[in-house]
Amino acid sequence: MSHLDQSARDGVKRALREQRIETPSWAYANSGTRFKVFAQPGVPRDPYEKIADAAVVHRLTGVAPTVALHIPWDRVDDYAALAKYASDRGVALGAINSNVFQDDDYKLGSVTNPDPRVRRRAVDHLLECVGIMDATGSRDLKLWFSDGTNYPGQDDIRARQDRLAEALSEVYDRLGAEQRMLLEYKLFEPAFYTTDVPDWGTAYAHCLRLGPRAQVVIDTGHHAPGTNIEFIVAFLLREDKLGAFDFNSRFYADDDLMVGSADPFQLFRIMNEIVAADALRPEYGIAFMLDQCHNIEPKIPAIIRSVMNVQEATAKALLVDREALAAAQAAGDVLGANAVLMDAYDTDVRPLLAGLRADLGLDPDPIAAYRRSGYAEKIAAERVGGRQAGWGA
Amino acid sequence: MSHLDQSARDGVKRALREQRIETPSWAYANSGTRFKVFAQPGVPRDPYEKIADAAVVHRLTGVAPTVALHIPWDRVDDYAALAKYASDRGVALGAINSNVFQDDDYKLGSVTNPDPRVRRRAVDHLLECVGIMDATGSRDLKLWFSDGTNYPGQDDIRARQDRLAEALSEVYDRLGAEQRMLLEYKLFEPAFYTTDVPDWGTAYAHCLRLGPRAQVVIDTGHHAPGTNIEFIVAFLLREDKLGAFDFNSRFYADDDLMVGSADPFQLFRIMNEIVAADALRPEYGIAFMLDQCHNIEPKIPAIIRSVMNVQEATAKALLVDREALAAAQAAGDVLGANAVLMDAYDTDVRPLLAGLRADLGLDPDPIAAYRRSGYAEKIAAERVGGRQAGWGA
Amino acid sequence: MSHLDQSARDGVKRALREQRIETPSWAYANSGTRFKVFAQPGVPRDPYEKIADAAVVHRLTGVAPTVALHIPWDRVDDYAALAKYASDRGVALGAINSNVFQDDDYKLGSVTNPDPRVRRRAVDHLLECVGIMDATGSRDLKLWFSDGTNYPGQDDIRARQDRLAEALSEVYDRLGAEQRMLLEYKLFEPAFYTTDVPDWGTAYAHCLRLGPRAQVVIDTGHHAPGTNIEFIVAFLLREDKLGAFDFNSRFYADDDLMVGSADPFQLFRIMNEIVAADALRPEYGIAFMLDQCHNIEPKIPAIIRSVMNVQEATAKALLVDREALAAAQAAGDVLGANAVLMDAYDTDVRPLLAGLRADLGLDPDPIAAYRRSGYAEKIAAERVGGRQAGWGA
Amino acid sequence: MSHLDQSARDGVKRALREQRIETPSWAYANSGTRFKVFAQPGVPRDPYEKIADAAVVHRLTGVAPTVALHIPWDRVDDYAALAKYASDRGVALGAINSNVFQDDDYKLGSVTNPDPRVRRRAVDHLLECVGIMDATGSRDLKLWFSDGTNYPGQDDIRARQDRLAEALSEVYDRLGAEQRMLLEYKLFEPAFYTTDVPDWGTAYAHCLRLGPRAQVVIDTGHHAPGTNIEFIVAFLLREDKLGAFDFNSRFYADDDLMVGSADPFQLFRIMNEIVAADALRPEYGIAFMLDQCHNIEPKIPAIIRSVMNVQEATAKALLVDREALAAAQAAGDVLGANAVLMDAYDTDVRPLLAGLRADLGLDPDPIAAYRRSGYAEKIAAERVGGRQAGWGA
Repeated sequence: MSHLDQSARDGVKRALREQRIETPSWAYANSGTRFKVFAQPGVPRDPYEKIADAAVVHRLTGVAPTVALHIPWDRVDDYAALAKYASDRGVALGAINSNVFQDDDYKLGSVTNPDPRVRRRAVDHLLECVGIMDATGSRDLKLWFSDGTNYPGQDDIRARQDRLAEALSEVYDRLGAEQRMLLEYKLFEPAFYTTDVPDWGTAYAHCLRLGPRAQVVIDTGHHAPGTNIEFIVAFLLREDKLGAFDFNSRFYADDDLMVGSADPFQLFRIMNEIVAADALRPEYGIAFMLDQCHNIEPKIPAIIRSVMNVQEATAKALLVDREALAAAQAAGDVLGANAVLMDAYDTDVRPLLAGLRADLGLDPDPIAAYRRSGYAEKIAAERVGGRQAGWGA
Repeated sequence: MSHLDQSARDGVKRALREQRIETPSWAYANSGTRFKVFAQPGVPRDPYEKIADAAVVHRLTGVAPTVALHIPWDRVDDYAALAKYASDRGVALGAINSNVFQDDDYKLGSVTNPDPRVRRRAVDHLLECVGIMDATGSRDLKLWFSDGTNYPGQDDIRARQDRLAEALSEVYDRLGAEQRMLLEYKLFEPAFYTTDVPDWGTAYAHCLRLGPRAQVVIDTGHHAPGTNIEFIVAFLLREDKLGAFDFNSRFYADDDLMVGSADPFQLFRIMNEIVAADALRPEYGIAFMLDQCHNIEPKIPAIIRSVMNVQEATAKALLVDREALAAAQAAGDVLGANAVLMDAYDTDVRPLLAGLRADLGLDPDPIAAYRRSGYAEKIAAERVGGRQAGWGA
Repeated sequence: MSHLDQSARDGVKRALREQRIETPSWAYANSGTRFKVFAQPGVPRDPYEKIADAAVVHRLTGVAPTVALHIPWDRVDDYAALAKYASDRGVALGAINSNVFQDDDYKLGSVTNPDPRVRRRAVDHLLECVGIMDATGSRDLKLWFSDGTNYPGQDDIRARQDRLAEALSEVYDRLGAEQRMLLEYKLFEPAFYTTDVPDWGTAYAHCLRLGPRAQVVIDTGHHAPGTNIEFIVAFLLREDKLGAFDFNSRFYADDDLMVGSADPFQLFRIMNEIVAADALRPEYGIAFMLDQCHNIEPKIPAIIRSVMNVQEATAKALLVDREALAAAQAAGDVLGANAVLMDAYDTDVRPLLAGLRADLGLDPDPIAAYRRSGYAEKIAAERVGGRQAGWGA
Repeated sequence: MSHLDQSARDGVKRALREQRIETPSWAYANSGTRFKVFAQPGVPRDPYEKIADAAVVHRLTGVAPTVALHIPWDRVDDYAALAKYASDRGVALGAINSNVFQDDDYKLGSVTNPDPRVRRRAVDHLLECVGIMDATGSRDLKLWFSDGTNYPGQDDIRARQDRLAEALSEVYDRLGAEQRMLLEYKLFEPAFYTTDVPDWGTAYAHCLRLGPRAQVVIDTGHHAPGTNIEFIVAFLLREDKLGAFDFNSRFYADDDLMVGSADPFQLFRIMNEIVAADALRPEYGIAFMLDQCHNIEPKIPAIIRSVMNVQEATAKALLVDREALAAAQAAGDVLGANAVLMDAYDTDVRPLLAGLRADLGLDPDPIAAYRRSGYAEKIAAERVGGRQAGWGA
């Protein structure tokens, strides 16, 4: 931080203090691979218990004040009551995530299914989600479609785009003036030959047609090997089409590991583009969300750690000496420009973040605080009987 | 086939007639991705029904006379009775596949788990499988370990190799004189950072230490992008360490699609190495097995089609004009040598295979014959109630 | 072809007869990797000799009537004379390819270079290319930019997009009413961190802003591993933004092998999307071009073989039973729909194409005809002295 | 470093002080991609000038006392004179790198070429390199073969292994008692279908047959996407078959960027395996070498920076709290074990290394010292005329 004067340092701290990271209700539940879901003690059994856990994460980190819901996994009779439950615990309900991939009807697709009956059903679910947004006050409808095909010839690639466009259009038209549609892309899985929204280009093209309230979601685990994610971030920012992140990390495919655990330098480069575009501020409108699977590690501390990883990457991005960087870039000084970036990355920002937490009245070490809190033991003891929540529950 | 005289043609037909492809009991059961398992009507509910289905595949194709079992999915009280049931239907029990990945104990690994109790349990299971081989008369114990880690530092890479070596050694010592250990490798999934047997080199090195009855299994979906599988085939053949194939195909990761459906040219190149080394003959000892997931397509016809795909690739490989190929290679004639190979690949071998089936008294079109047989409708009607078999059941 | 009646068969033949494949002047010249360029005997020493070779390819195949030029490699004083030379040999000049990657000025980029002087120079070159198009009557300006960065921080990703947009806009405005700009994308190489036009989405977004005469070029070797190219084809066709192909094939990166040699099934799937959209016809406007490097094989027969590979894939695509395919797709018959496609792919279309050539008065076997022609020996004997053409010459 | 007592800290510093990193003569010369080699001012014109540059790197970093040579690029009449020239400047000659890929004879391979004459020539070159080792006193012969094929069928995969084994055996037999053969593998490039030594398994198997003085070289840019390099490090260490590293970094293929610039966390994980096995010590025998291409950045400061990057990764690896790590691993504490590793990685070790340099009487900031030295300006002014060295020169 040697290049920063006091006012610049204050700016860094202010930005970090205002940062918002949304945690997803399903990350508190059981998850696994196709080979096995390992159950963990104390896992929530209903949406209320998920929110209780999310509130713990926020209480310890100070920057995770909202929880994304997943419908139907988090369907309740009374969303106002759920929102009240959340706000009593210091958090709020966030984005609504639709699910059109876990019913037998969706074997060959949802909104792109060759069968119009199935498409109708899928669109109706999406419209139901907008209704839930009205009830929860959520701004964002996050759409991920598992739609695709497994075998060449199985269905018509182009016709499926037509069906997709039609479905998106109907849902877009239903959105309220303050609501947004966030469209996620993914290279593959569960479809293994074509996926109907496989890359940012496809999501972008659809959002462009739909209008300004349709924006792209970047899930950091959804790309082909070698894809430069920060390029996509910069490009979508330039086009004003970046709506949200689904953060996680991966060594191979959509591994859904803790964000920042596989390639912390990549996470820093992503946050660097955000900071460079001044897009970190909540009012800019990007939703920074986690979307991970804690298959073998305890869920709450893994989420706390993930939030901290995003904070650390952000802090490093905020420390980049933008003037020196711009000067070196303009001069064509390859090594100099790279060195400015690396200087920020190589900085140990943990003391800075510990200080920030102290300023906020938080424990400087949220993991240790969680461990000391006894919460893990408490929920393991209390949440006995019933059915643990998980993907599909 | 223009370069083939009558005796060569007879040789091709004889080789195809003697070809053996093993189908796996679990491919007849339900399967899916981590997102959803779509149930299908008529799916087997126990090992007997799986064998009944496998017998249908053999009856229609003539080249699939054995069924691989998976323990504990196919555990029965009386393996002699199961073998009798199979032989009454014209098939026999094949390789025994162990399963040390679906118990909560195995969350952090089986034979490489840091906990010696879990390792002991895993090895005991492998020894149990050898006992079952004694009962079924199976020659091959096929080992696939999901063991690995998700996060850097989670466990000691090298110590896990020590544990692996120790476990393999104990099991190898238990094998009878006519029994083999087949060791499978896989790049990733379900482990997402390290996998303890991630590549052929690792499997090869362990097999080399163990001895001649330990050999490597090539699963065609278990490689990093860009890996040249036929190179591995040729290399292991040269080292006499290729024990078996797990056939399937993929566009991305371990997609487990029908073999030959994603890249039929690759399957041809693989079979070309087999034929060139004269390793197709059953007495050579390579087990050619399917290992696939028919998540969205009907299982029995998908397996029939897969068997046919392997046959077609094999037929093309048998048609390669070896003399012309060798001459062009020796002359450094790049285009000429490639053209010899492509000439075989471009040949439509379906008439040849239809003729072979007619010679064997089979319907020349196994798929159509299956459709006409009414078997699908029969099992859908009969197999009602009970619990459909699937991964983990 | 059993499902085709006579009129349908005639349609297939007519489509194949009208097919047009453009060969690139530089494929006749020496090429190599960064490790070594292996010189071959008889390689052209100037644009005239390249065109003479291209004319041979067209004379033998009947479907390669145009030659793409590369500026400055093919710069001549009198383009009218060059065009006359071509037309005297039965071919015409095709697309103009710009080159802003082989001058020392372009070390840090051309149109995206941080230095405005270099950007000006690059744009001037592109404008010069349009001038050459005016002289040659070429319709298409093909733009590939090697621009990018090697190190994080080296330059501003977003600012480079601004510069790119500005340059493209100036060139687009200079185009005549019948001229088009074709924008190529490439994942990486020679830039190794960011590439300024790395994927179809980026090229598409720029073309969309520019207007209807800007379209995307798909080079089949320019994608990340696992990318589904036929999806991109279908998507761009739906958006009316597919302008051209640069055909070649690859097992790893931008290997530039003969098209169809690495994955013939993929080439078939690509041509299947073209045929399904009725976009094969020359009047549709897609330029089907080769862009390959014959590093170790003789160039002219390699190009003949490549043209034949495209023809074979096209013929198979034309044989797809569209009605049966659509019916199976509509019925959700996964295996049935796949089987319809595979039936066409598995057909040996070489007799059909030999017949087509006979109809056109050509030798049914162009490779054999080339070998018999003595052309290779002739150019090896004649083209002695001077400097062989190659990349950069 | 909070967990380290004074004696542990001293151990860290001692290890860093003894670390040895070899720089390659060719990294000081011009390099590029197949598209363009950008010349840089002041680049060496002969082996002497390369050694002069390498001596500057060692003088400024203190840990790069040897220079690898490449034959024939660095062929001189009098190797004793060259060695004397080096030692006068404080450095010594290191590994001898053979080159059997840049002669027209090697178009279809060197030691695996189908033509025995070419094979003989290639082996003779390798034997010549051993002769040079005798003259220079070099311990290591580093072998990289570009051998492979571009098209299926082009040559016999297995026969090429036979030829490779024969060539390696002849060279191995020629080695003196203190000399080693280091065998490098590479997935692809310049061969694009098969490569004869494509992966660590192939190199390992050959080295195993040859004997204890044959060991594997890991080039960090030579793997398929997704390959876990630290696993290979750990595995080869366990087998006592890891002979050397060729350090560089990559985002895509064999990009040959500065080591640590693309994925610093990966470099740390690699060095962590080295430290964990106590294999950093020079007497352990692993040669830590750079092998990079500074295509667009100035070469000497890029090499200095690369040396520093290896030092920083090593320092972090040395800081890992091994006791805490082992305890967490044994307890199955996934998050705890990962946190121990990350704690070391997140530490800013630049002050530690600056201190080390001060202890050694060096400038704590080698890059700044280089800039101040005026050496870049000096060589740019002096090295005018003659021919700049580069790949192939």
